Amino acid sequence: MPSSLLDHQSMLAIAIEEAEQGLAEGGVPIGAALFDVTGRLLGRGRNRRVQDGDPSMHAETCAFRAAGRRRSYRDTIMVSTLAPCLYCSGLVCQFGIPTVVVGEARNYPGELDWLRSRGVRVVLLDSDECHALLSQFISAHPEIWNEDIGD
Amino acid sequence: MPSSLLDHQSMLAIAIEEAEQGLAEGGVPIGAALFDVTGRLLGRGRNRRVQDGDPSMHAETCAFRAAGRRRSYRDTIMVSTLAPCLYCSGLVCQFGIPTVVVGEARNYPGELDWLRSRGVRVVLLDSDECHALLSQFISAHPEIWNEDIGD
Repeated sequence: MPSSLLDHQSMLAIAIEEAEQGLAEGGVPIGAALFDVTGRLLGRGRNRRVQDGDPSMHAETCAFRAAGRRRSYRDTIMVSTLAPCLYCSGLVCQFGIPTVVVGEARNYPGELDWLRSRGVRVVLLDSDECHALLSQFISAHPEIWNEDIGD
Repeated sequence: MPSSLLDHQSMLAIAIEEAEQGLAEGGVPIGAALFDVTGRLLGRGRNRRVQDGDPSMHAETCAFRAAGRRRSYRDTIMVSTLAPCLYCSGLVCQFGIPTVVVGEARNYPGELDWLRSRGVRVVLLDSDECHALLSQFISAHPEIWNEDIGD
């Protein structure tokens, strides 16, 4: 069961790949991936607001969708380059995903305390790479960013 | 601005059509629709777990997706045949949808108190039609239902 910082960093690297691909497509550079506790990748995805005109596809929901139908999420770990918003935090809690690995929470604080209050383990890696990717996008496209977080 | 019971019932009728179509497809019969406050339909959808193998498409997220990108949801009303789960309630709160019209909360209580605590206006219509549609499905397919709510 991956619990070391290295393992989480390796998981985060997949989410960062997704964010980078999103940026290359002109999209909001936030990526996510769902793993099982053995480290097996179940699904990966990125924010698709711009690419698909789909406001429902935040990175976490996209990775969740890509993982397909599952009877239980008790053995899974959600990894995201950014602290999950309330929509994605609701997903995590509704489906009982017990652990969330977060790239950074500086560009957006998300709902980390709320997740913790509901018993979710939050691992905040405070990645400069994740922060830089998104902060540059926010500076260049504040209107898309505000739209994406409903602000 | 629709505020009467009749207007909400007319909105709910669209969500019920979606639920019925989902049932005909073998899917979880929950439907939803997003309207603006003048009563204009912005998007409609239904649970697509079975049809698309997509666990991210609850009825509310499907209707939200169908409405496409919007700068603001402050003038919208989300209508669902069932009380929204935490995932869909998170969506409502994140994007600032101020009103949720709910068909029924007997098959599933959802997060109505939580929505209210965050300032969302909840209109519960307690529809026997919505209740009957879903309760029959739950009796016939309890495993799909439990999977859909992460239970």
